[in-house]
Amino acid sequence: MSQAFDPTQTDQSDVVVSSRVRLARNLVGFPFVNRADPEQCREIVTLVRSMELASGAETTWVDMTEANQTDRHILLERHLISQQFIAAEGPRGVAINRERTLSIMVNEEDHLRIQVLLPGSQLRNAWNQVNKVDHRLERSAELAVHPRWGYLTACPTNVGTAIRFSIMAHLPALRMTKEVERLRRAANTLHLAVRGFYGEGSESSGDFYQISNQLTLGLSEEDLLAKFADTVVPKVVNYERVAREMLLERNRILLEDRVHRAVGILTTARLLSIIEAMKQLSRVRLGISLGLVDVVSLQDVQNLFLEIQPAHLRVAFGANAEVQTEDMDDEWIRECRATHVRATLAKAR
Amino acid sequence: MSQAFDPTQTDQSDVVVSSRVRLARNLVGFPFVNRADPEQCREIVTLVRSMELASGAETTWVDMTEANQTDRHILLERHLISQQFIAAEGPRGVAINRERTLSIMVNEEDHLRIQVLLPGSQLRNAWNQVNKVDHRLERSAELAVHPRWGYLTACPTNVGTAIRFSIMAHLPALRMTKEVERLRRAANTLHLAVRGFYGEGSESSGDFYQISNQLTLGLSEEDLLAKFADTVVPKVVNYERVAREMLLERNRILLEDRVHRAVGILTTARLLSIIEAMKQLSRVRLGISLGLVDVVSLQDVQNLFLEIQPAHLRVAFGANAEVQTEDMDDEWIRECRATHVRATLAKAR
Repeated sequence: MSQAFDPTQTDQSDVVVSSRVRLARNLVGFPFVNRADPEQCREIVTLVRSMELASGAETTWVDMTEANQTDRHILLERHLISQQFIAAEGPRGVAINRERTLSIMVNEEDHLRIQVLLPGSQLRNAWNQVNKVDHRLERSAELAVHPRWGYLTACPTNVGTAIRFSIMAHLPALRMTKEVERLRRAANTLHLAVRGFYGEGSESSGDFYQISNQLTLGLSEEDLLAKFADTVVPKVVNYERVAREMLLERNRILLEDRVHRAVGILTTARLLSIIEAMKQLSRVRLGISLGLVDVVSLQDVQNLFLEIQPAHLRVAFGANAEVQTEDMDDEWIRECRATHVRATLAKAR
Repeated sequence: MSQAFDPTQTDQSDVVVSSRVRLARNLVGFPFVNRADPEQCREIVTLVRSMELASGAETTWVDMTEANQTDRHILLERHLISQQFIAAEGPRGVAINRERTLSIMVNEEDHLRIQVLLPGSQLRNAWNQVNKVDHRLERSAELAVHPRWGYLTACPTNVGTAIRFSIMAHLPALRMTKEVERLRRAANTLHLAVRGFYGEGSESSGDFYQISNQLTLGLSEEDLLAKFADTVVPKVVNYERVAREMLLERNRILLEDRVHRAVGILTTARLLSIIEAMKQLSRVRLGISLGLVDVVSLQDVQNLFLEIQPAHLRVAFGANAEVQTEDMDDEWIRECRATHVRATLAKAR
């Protein structure tokens, strides 16, 4: 199916940065995580680790109680674990495949959170991959399912399919024209959530918005996917594209100014905070999509969004030691960031 | 004397942008300008124009009642006339030499305001040139002089020598370290005034400060000059230089960041307001002085400070027509400014 032609999912990379599908699953015979004691949590971890969930692919197990701050933040920056998973306590961990597209969090809010995250607009692919893991899980364990309500989850909003589809959308034009607020309101009535770069409770950074379905009950997974991927996503993409065209038409010089300045700043700055770097890279990304600049490829810019994150820079620049969270973006890291961005853009030229 | 070696006045171009000497003179037989009627003002203009004041040099007469807004602002941007001379009413004008270093305003606050403005630290040169014009004036007309008080002027603060020495100082490091306020307070006790880019009442723009002597009474012109040029100016220069060295030593990365970003912005922006352009050029000027950048010469940057002024851009880009003052820095001019700055920096590379 992933090879089949799908007009709604091709070439949306100007707006859709990545596609994500996640399932919540709980095991029969254990309380939900928030009610389980450490011993029960340890048993859940042991049980899940004994299963062969990812077909053929090597998965790595990261024990969260042993991982240091930098390693935890590396996973967060790659969207492989959640903010709350970092801060949580008790036995827990995450299995990650070699391509770092699949992650299985054990003892986050639910016993299992299975996620596939793929670049670009690939919701059907992601769904197929998640589905395979789910089938293997069903053969390995007894899952908490209610005949009428479907899959049971720690939070009632997930009950039913317990599935969530989401895309990371780059909406700089909608933000510039302040239409993101209209999008938020429209999303609400369509049972969609519009969130920041790192999910629930986080701010939008670099004009990126995570848009996800909120409905998990009353429709099959396939119907939810069809609704989201074939109706919602194309609408969002179109909305942003129209806003971009409008900006180009009505205020081309202002748009060019912002895009070219962004290149100017990124190629010369000696200190870059994460917030400014994401803002300026966002403008470069917009400029590439609109054909205003070609100093760097869309792929290079997309890689930079990950490489400039604090924990990634710490590892790349050789400070892998344990750090306090509040130090993550200190002056040294801001200098490393500027150095790395300059080098990348110089190489691309 | 202008050829004599003067250790205090050589090579201060890192801080001293220009040197200015101006004299106030009034003619016997006419009331001060604020008391004169239009007919008397016209007579003063006619009388002054009949004198040969500038030796050999061609001077051009600009009748302020006929000049349009753009032409007036061209003169203001070159510091050849004052803000209040633009807004004033009644017969008045200015004689300007070919090199545009000498200006004689007629019917500003006093009947005559003779000014010589030279680039860099050249107060003695400027004084010699002003002095020659003054001697010619004394031979051509009877001046209002009191045997005890000296030259009489419309404003009592000028009475006596009626002379003012000033330099335009570039003080980015003192501003960054917030020591400009200390300089202001110190200046006060030394009978000095610290003003903005366009003199009295104007804001400092691009870190430029006009520093002038306020004392005109009780000392000879030569003594005032010696005190200002040999004591005050070297102190200000040294104060700024120490601040620059301190910044370099304590916060080199921040300084480099600001300087290189300034180059980045000026070489890429498509819209530049006058305020931002002066701010960024100021940082480039500082960077050149400290050897942090060499993309452009100090002279090119200094020329840009003049060329980016709104009236100069209007003329350069072919909109010489009458404009309203409030439109002087509209979007079209901001675009012209960015275009001109980019072209200049690209040529310099």
